[in-house]
Amino acid sequence: MVSHKPVIFVVEPFGGSIRWHNPSLPLIYWDDYAVTRGDGIFESILIRDGHAANLERHAQRFCTSAAALGLPEPILNSWINATQAAIEEFGEGEGKCTWTYSRGRASTGIPTAWVSIQPISDVVLAQREEGVRVMLSERGWSFPSELPAKTLNYAATMATLRLARERGFDDVIFTDPDDGHVLEGATSTVVTVKGDKLRTPYDDTILPGTTQAALFAHAESQGYRCKQKVIDVDYLLAADSVWLVSSTRVAARVRRLGEDKLKAPDNENEIRSLIDAAMTRG
Amino acid sequence: MVSHKPVIFVVEPFGGSIRWHNPSLPLIYWDDYAVTRGDGIFESILIRDGHAANLERHAQRFCTSAAALGLPEPILNSWINATQAAIEEFGEGEGKCTWTYSRGRASTGIPTAWVSIQPISDVVLAQREEGVRVMLSERGWSFPSELPAKTLNYAATMATLRLARERGFDDVIFTDPDDGHVLEGATSTVVTVKGDKLRTPYDDTILPGTTQAALFAHAESQGYRCKQKVIDVDYLLAADSVWLVSSTRVAARVRRLGEDKLKAPDNENEIRSLIDAAMTRG
Repeated sequence: MVSHKPVIFVVEPFGGSIRWHNPSLPLIYWDDYAVTRGDGIFESILIRDGHAANLERHAQRFCTSAAALGLPEPILNSWINATQAAIEEFGEGEGKCTWTYSRGRASTGIPTAWVSIQPISDVVLAQREEGVRVMLSERGWSFPSELPAKTLNYAATMATLRLARERGFDDVIFTDPDDGHVLEGATSTVVTVKGDKLRTPYDDTILPGTTQAALFAHAESQGYRCKQKVIDVDYLLAADSVWLVSSTRVAARVRRLGEDKLKAPDNENEIRSLIDAAMTRG
Repeated sequence: MVSHKPVIFVVEPFGGSIRWHNPSLPLIYWDDYAVTRGDGIFESILIRDGHAANLERHAQRFCTSAAALGLPEPILNSWINATQAAIEEFGEGEGKCTWTYSRGRASTGIPTAWVSIQPISDVVLAQREEGVRVMLSERGWSFPSELPAKTLNYAATMATLRLARERGFDDVIFTDPDDGHVLEGATSTVVTVKGDKLRTPYDDTILPGTTQAALFAHAESQGYRCKQKVIDVDYLLAADSVWLVSSTRVAARVRRLGEDKLKAPDNENEIRSLIDAAMTRG
């Protein structure tokens, strides 16, 4: 097994040139709004077999996020060039690629932009195989529906994840405190399987998932019937299987939901392969 | 007038040693949770006449924020030492000091901590003198009441501020969309004056303001009657004067609120001096 080092390429946000950055050296200045205000956006993209998986959907959401924050429109060509250069430097094997785009330094007014690739963590690899124990958590705060962007503001989500881990869980599924509707995972989209039906929660406070979108497109072509739907916790408990899908973890089956054990379905490997294939085709 | 350069001192989060950092060089690594997740806290502190104003309240809230995020308890002595060292390096005159404390790099697990001082911006200086035009904005999102911390997650607030500026305003006062109650400024606390009564909005989704607390303590000693109270917009319009108070801007009188012009009260200078004195004593 190859041990990979992280790779960084900085993207010049206007001209579009790229340059390699040593990951062992600091990158961001003290007055960057990414740091001082969390004023920036990101995408996490799976690198597999030398390819960025599901790249078109990520690029599209990235542009939507940038527009929502009033950042200059990303020069996608530069981001893709930087991603290619980073893949070459990173080498074979799976990686987690992150695009980050911030408003930049207060003193210069120029956005900061970079692409990184790092190895997939052992925790993520294990969760793909073994599934995850999930804590249900009412989300007491709400996201700004006026800001449909994948921002860097995850402090509250991280706090909930820490609480979950203290209690012996691996992850979180948020529910709406008013009506109990299922929202999303901490950094993933919820997908249920019941017979040939794939469902994902409908709610206007959650950001559309790129992996879930790729999955639904592929699954439809394989004869599954897919749709968004308002879902409550009982619906999760009654499903054949419940999955957290996201770009780098791809799919982790929920094997415990709060106090309930969720048995592995007969078609666990089939579903996992379906999600895997959706990512590879994306 | 002296032109000041920014000053940075890095705080070693466990041992407590401090070291100078060149502000013209990058400080933060690509995998710092401050950048990737906004997972950190801060305080902004006014530096005036070589002193950190209202330091005790800032230090206290800093510790509360750190506890809420499960960060190691700050070694306050180190933060104060770094602040002193930065003040000496910065020299005479007013400055804005920021304490930032993040969960640190994913690859090391060690928190990142630093103190900076920079000149007060011309915009802030002008707003102290001339007051501010304020847009009213329903806050469509809510803060996590389970996370009573001054985190780095200000992307949505910044988006609202940008919108306000596009519309010819300088700042924002948020209201609760459900009941119309007044909440807070974008980065400040709302205070009203009516006769000898000072009021600030009561709501459990807003973080207590350090400047407002210092003001109320001082104003009480000067014969004013101060309290928190549920306030609506009509209450603001009927007040003698409305102020946005915060550590570095200190006090900016609201001279326009939405479409309404708010006339300067007879005691404008008296109130400004009162707030000013509260900061100097803190």
